[in-house]
Amino acid sequence: MTAPAINPLDPLPEIDAALRRLTATLGPDFGLPPSLADAVTYALLGPGKRIRPLLAWHACVAAGGEGARSLPSGVAIELVHAFSLVHDDLPALDNDDMRRGRPTLHRHTSEAMAILAGDEMLTLAFRVLLRQAGAAQLSPSLAASLADELARGTLAMIHGQVLDTLGVPDPSAPALEIVRLIHEQKTGALIRAAVRMGAMCSDSVTEDSLTHLTAAAEAMGLAFQIADDLLDVESSAEEVGKATGKDAALGKRTYPGAIGAEACRAEIQRLRAVTAQHLGALGPGAAGLAALSDQLATRTK
Amino acid sequence: MTAPAINPLDPLPEIDAALRRLTATLGPDFGLPPSLADAVTYALLGPGKRIRPLLAWHACVAAGGEGARSLPSGVAIELVHAFSLVHDDLPALDNDDMRRGRPTLHRHTSEAMAILAGDEMLTLAFRVLLRQAGAAQLSPSLAASLADELARGTLAMIHGQVLDTLGVPDPSAPALEIVRLIHEQKTGALIRAAVRMGAMCSDSVTEDSLTHLTAAAEAMGLAFQIADDLLDVESSAEEVGKATGKDAALGKRTYPGAIGAEACRAEIQRLRAVTAQHLGALGPGAAGLAALSDQLATRTK
Repeated sequence: MTAPAINPLDPLPEIDAALRRLTATLGPDFGLPPSLADAVTYALLGPGKRIRPLLAWHACVAAGGEGARSLPSGVAIELVHAFSLVHDDLPALDNDDMRRGRPTLHRHTSEAMAILAGDEMLTLAFRVLLRQAGAAQLSPSLAASLADELARGTLAMIHGQVLDTLGVPDPSAPALEIVRLIHEQKTGALIRAAVRMGAMCSDSVTEDSLTHLTAAAEAMGLAFQIADDLLDVESSAEEVGKATGKDAALGKRTYPGAIGAEACRAEIQRLRAVTAQHLGALGPGAAGLAALSDQLATRTK
Repeated sequence: MTAPAINPLDPLPEIDAALRRLTATLGPDFGLPPSLADAVTYALLGPGKRIRPLLAWHACVAAGGEGARSLPSGVAIELVHAFSLVHDDLPALDNDDMRRGRPTLHRHTSEAMAILAGDEMLTLAFRVLLRQAGAAQLSPSLAASLADELARGTLAMIHGQVLDTLGVPDPSAPALEIVRLIHEQKTGALIRAAVRMGAMCSDSVTEDSLTHLTAAAEAMGLAFQIADDLLDVESSAEEVGKATGKDAALGKRTYPGAIGAEACRAEIQRLRAVTAQHLGALGPGAAGLAALSDQLATRTK
C-alpha cells in the first residue's frame, strides 16, 4: 500500500475564506472608506495562486502544528505581496497595465488610489498580525516575532526592487552574482518569511526544524524565481495573463540572460535536490511543503 | 520663587541624535542599498520640527517615565510621518515640488525612488520598534502593543489622505463635519499615536493617565491642524518653506473655508482649554507636554 497522493492546494478554500473574511470587515473593523476598501479588495482577491499563504500553512504543518494556526500570517504575507504588485505596476516603476489577466489597480482606479491602497495594504499586514495578539489568538511575544519577521522580509523585498528597477551599486559584478542577489531579495525574502512565519506558528517548532525549513525556503524561492524567468522567456502573454518578454525589453537581469536556459534548468534541479534534502530531515509532516515546492519549481504557467 | 520656564524643545538634540544613529546604520544593520539609504536619509533628516517624537518624549515624562525611553517610538513615528510626506508629495497626489524649503524627494531623485523610499520608511518604522524588543530594550509584549498603536494611527492617516485627495463618501454632509473628520484622521491620528506610544513606554503609566493623555492629544492635534490651515491662508510661501494658498487652489477642505478665520481662532482657544484641563489632571510632570501643545496651537510658521 502506497501513501495517498498529497495535493498541496488542499488548504486553498480555508486561505481564500480567511482573505474574504478580512475584506468583508475592512470598513467595520479597520475604518477604511468604501472606495479604499474596494481598491484593497480588488488587489487582494484577484485571481492569484496564494503561494505564500500555502507555504506558511505547509511550513506550520511541517513544524508539527495545525495549518490553520498559520492563517493570520498567511493573510499578512498575502497583503504584503499584493501591496508590492500594486506599487511595482505603477507607471513610475514597471508601468504594467495588466496583471493576472485584469487591469492593474492604477488602471482600474487611479494612480493616486493605487499608491494609497498599497500603503494601506502594507500597514494592514502588520495590524492584522498584531490584532491577533490583542484577540489572544497569538501570544504578544509570538505576534512581535512574526511582525519582525514580516518586516525583515518586506524590507529585503523592497531592496530587491530598488536594485532591479534603479540599478545595482556595482554593475560590473558578474551577471550571475547580480541576478542572484536581486532574486534572493525581491522574491526570495518574502518566501523565506512565509515559511519561517508558518513554522513559528507551530507550538512544537524547534531550532533545528526552523533551520532546515529556512534553508529549504531559500532554495525553493530561488528555484521558483528561475522558473518564473524561464516562463517569461518561453511563454506567450495569453498563457501567463501578463505581458511577457518584458524583462528583456526593460533590460532587466534574468537568470536565462545570465547563464542561458539550459543551465537554468540544471540549477532548478540542483535547488530541488537541496530543498528535498532539508525537508527530508523533517519527516512525513513535510510532505505537503515538498509537494508544493515541486509544483513551484516545475510550473508551466 | 516661580518655577523655571520649561522649554519643550530641550529633547531635540537627543531626538536628532537618535534619527542620525538610525540613518548611519541603514546599510550595515538594515541592508539598504546605498542609493536607497541616501533617499531615506534625505527625507528623514531634512529640516523638520520633530513634533511627533517631541510629543512622545513629553507624554512619556507626563506618564512618569524617562523621556529617553520613548526614543524608539519617536523614531518610528517620525519614519511614518516622513513616509507620508514623500508619498503625499508625489505627482499623482499633491504634486508638490518643494517641502521644508528643499526639493521634494521625487524632484531630488526620481518618482520611482520616492515611491520605494516611502515604502521602505513605512516598513522600517515597524522594524525599528520590533528590533528593540529583540535587543531587550522593550519587552516583546510592549513592542507588540506599540507596533499595533503605530499601525492603527498610520491606517487612519492614510484614510484621511484618501478622503482629502479622492473625496468623501457623502460630499453633501456639512462642511465642518467633513473637514473635522479629515483632520482627525490625516493629522490627528498620528499625533494621538505619538502621545499614546510615548505614555505606554513609561513603566508607571496608568489607565487613567492614558485616558487623559489620549483626550489631550485629540484636542491638541485638531488645534494644531486648524492653526496649520490658518497659516496656509494667511502666510507667504517664503515664511513656511512650501507653497501656500494651495489648499484653496486644490479645492481642499479647510477649517477657515468651513467656518471662517475668526471662528477658527475661537475653536483653537477652546481646544487649548480642553488640552490644559486634561493635562492639568496629570500634575507637574505634564508641564513639558502642555508647553509643547501651546506652541503647536500658536505657532506662526
